[in-house]
Amino acid sequence: MRRYGRIVADLLTETLLETPVFDVQGFPVETRVGSKQFVRLRMPDWVNVVAVTEGGQLLVVKQHRWGLDAETLEIVGGVVDPGEEPAETARRELMEETGYGGGTWRSLGFVHPNPAIQDNRCWLFEVLGVRKMAEQALDPGEDIEVVLVSLAQARDLVLSGGISHVLSVVTLMRHLDSP
Amino acid sequence: MRRYGRIVADLLTETLLETPVFDVQGFPVETRVGSKQFVRLRMPDWVNVVAVTEGGQLLVVKQHRWGLDAETLEIVGGVVDPGEEPAETARRELMEETGYGGGTWRSLGFVHPNPAIQDNRCWLFEVLGVRKMAEQALDPGEDIEVVLVSLAQARDLVLSGGISHVLSVVTLMRHLDSP
Repeated sequence: MRRYGRIVADLLTETLLETPVFDVQGFPVETRVGSKQFVRLRMPDWVNVVAVTEGGQLLVVKQHRWGLDAETLEIVGGVVDPGEEPAETARRELMEETGYGGGTWRSLGFVHPNPAIQDNRCWLFEVLGVRKMAEQALDPGEDIEVVLVSLAQARDLVLSGGISHVLSVVTLMRHLDSP
Repeated sequence: MRRYGRIVADLLTETLLETPVFDVQGFPVETRVGSKQFVRLRMPDWVNVVAVTEGGQLLVVKQHRWGLDAETLEIVGGVVDPGEEPAETARRELMEETGYGGGTWRSLGFVHPNPAIQDNRCWLFEVLGVRKMAEQALDPGEDIEVVLVSLAQARDLVLSGGISHVLSVVTLMRHLDSP
């Protein structure tokens, strides 16, 4: 399979900024039409979880998102910690953000959030039959309200744009489409 | 609707890095559990386009993506230029990346790529009945191969992960699901 170019040398990759959420790297690229400077975000992998209770309701989280500076409805999600398996992250984030656990887990695969500028993956999970087992255990700065919705309401939220975070949307679509 | 916190003051927002693709901002946030420093990426809006030819084939683009440092299959996409409407961007990007134009256009709504750290939207479009009208007109550093696939192949690529860019995936799912 033909390659469309190459990164000139990893030695030329420069860290332009480090933050707690991502690092920014700059690097030169050789292409058929000349060389160009690119930027890339280095971030850990993420997870998203569609969780359905024993009573058949879907767990949605309401929170203020600072990128958008607005309140959003999403499904449970989070960042894979170093050394953690994505399936562990999914269980941990579900418990921390909602206090729900148990149930039967299934992988819904993964997506790339943005291959143009990021190399991380978002791993998608479905869990059926969860129940409330504990109180939320939120990180500093997290303030998350749990909302229970029916399957029909979840479908409406996806179609209406009431849920607009693309990672939530694609995970819910995979859950709703699957047999 | 209750607010989960507030940005202390726009005056305290600091530009940490400027790049051709995005800027990085840092800002303090007051929450119920104390104040915290956040980072945000400022970027223009994006578009994604599902384009179907007069013969019923879907236009897929193959290119090396430098975030992932790998070749990907995606649908046509791009960045909304200043002063441009997303529908104009969609027509322009389709013509530039593939040389195809014409057809009947429909909006498939928008998604937020990542409300946690970005405020931009990605506008989704479908166009039916496009035809080859010109040669590609690629930007410096772009090297894009156009691939024609059947509807069944597109569905398989989404299900198998052969197309893994979440913005391509969600646009294709909306197209494939719609009547």
